[in-house]
Amino acid sequence: MMDNSKFTITVIKVGGAVVEDPAQLSILLDSFVKVEGPKVLVHGGGRSATKLAAQLGIESRMVGGRRITDAETLKVVTMVYAGLVNKNIVAQLQARGVNALGLTGADLNLFRAHRRPVTQEGIDFGFVGDVDSADGPRLLQLLHSGVTPVIAPLTHDGQGNLLNTNADTMAQTVATALSTVTALPTLTFCFELPGVLRDPADPSTLIPRMTEADFQAFVADGTIAGGMIPKLENAFTALRAGVSAVRITSIHHLQGGTLITL
Amino acid sequence: MMDNSKFTITVIKVGGAVVEDPAQLSILLDSFVKVEGPKVLVHGGGRSATKLAAQLGIESRMVGGRRITDAETLKVVTMVYAGLVNKNIVAQLQARGVNALGLTGADLNLFRAHRRPVTQEGIDFGFVGDVDSADGPRLLQLLHSGVTPVIAPLTHDGQGNLLNTNADTMAQTVATALSTVTALPTLTFCFELPGVLRDPADPSTLIPRMTEADFQAFVADGTIAGGMIPKLENAFTALRAGVSAVRITSIHHLQGGTLITL
Repeated sequence: MMDNSKFTITVIKVGGAVVEDPAQLSILLDSFVKVEGPKVLVHGGGRSATKLAAQLGIESRMVGGRRITDAETLKVVTMVYAGLVNKNIVAQLQARGVNALGLTGADLNLFRAHRRPVTQEGIDFGFVGDVDSADGPRLLQLLHSGVTPVIAPLTHDGQGNLLNTNADTMAQTVATALSTVTALPTLTFCFELPGVLRDPADPSTLIPRMTEADFQAFVADGTIAGGMIPKLENAFTALRAGVSAVRITSIHHLQGGTLITL
Repeated sequence: MMDNSKFTITVIKVGGAVVEDPAQLSILLDSFVKVEGPKVLVHGGGRSATKLAAQLGIESRMVGGRRITDAETLKVVTMVYAGLVNKNIVAQLQARGVNALGLTGADLNLFRAHRRPVTQEGIDFGFVGDVDSADGPRLLQLLHSGVTPVIAPLTHDGQGNLLNTNADTMAQTVATALSTVTALPTLTFCFELPGVLRDPADPSTLIPRMTEADFQAFVADGTIAGGMIPKLENAFTALRAGVSAVRITSIHHLQGGTLITL
């Protein structure tokens, strides 16, 4: 038996802008290989899905940043997330000596979800899933056996339906599930920028550490705005659920960037 | 430790015509669930790939039944085989209580292959892989832990490239790899017909048992012709490599049909 209390696990989330660009993906995977200890990669792929949908004449409709997922769109995201993006990452990690295993929430019944109900405003997101549970012990078992899970943002409902699920949420769910079975999961969101910046155009304005009080002050004075707000809210949700640290950093330096704590 | 000498494993191959038809796929999966003991499902998906390629304006070129796989076609088969077909089967098996895990040859480095060289006739099949090795012990380990592998016909070259690989060959490789680590793998090819028929239009002409000598006689007198010949040759290759029995049967009765032995 390993001593789980000292079993540090790094959960890394990478978004669609990186995975659709072979040069950026290669940088990310080189950085990922250098992360010591057991690790999990969760990826998006929304931009590639929007491209394929357009090629097939399927309109991509987004509401509040979430894709309305009808039956045809579900096929597109299943092909892109679980097929094209996931298996290319797996093959490229194997080429780097990492024993990667590509997974969706249906595989090994890892992530159960329910279809999001029609909203009060009457918006039907279709085959969009909100996660109910993740199998932390099974993920830990894979990590113990030397396997590196590569997770696509798809869950299932247990009735035979795949569901399109937000990749940031999947990453947070993985880290939270691992926090129930091991002491030290950390969660890293990586992208093109070096971290959370006071001025997005100036990398020297990196904020190296941020607490929830700092975050609220930055939102109040307008330093932090737009898409960074839900990303940081997600980070604090993970921290409150037991994740030991969250990082927002660049694909070049997975252990740099902005360190977020409660 | 389990006693491997008595560990019977059933490897079942299902082709593209079944997987692209939801009603037939459902029948197959119901039959698959009823097969007792550890089992592996290997699937094709060529018809769905041809459809998607056509929708994307990519011409499907086949030579000797094999798809010429340029970079764009590789993306199509990766999306269809590893994404759409594989994950839908996994989700539907989970709904039936089977702990399925979708895999390509890149996942867990299960199947290494090399890119097929340009033929003497100058035909470049592109990203088509001929299998070099399959990891029988790892497959056995998954089966021992209660996991049902669902395998898409893609391998990898260890250099980061996925390769399009014939699903019949993948199934035969799985059964052969398992025969080196356990005594009794059987291999079942299932499709729309009840088995090998003397008259393909008349199910009552089923040939219940066939040896290699029978096969040669049937080929000589024209009873067996066309696409059934390479399928049966594949079966005898598997038997010579240590697979205990091969079956060719319908999706309705996975333990019926034609039993093939040396």
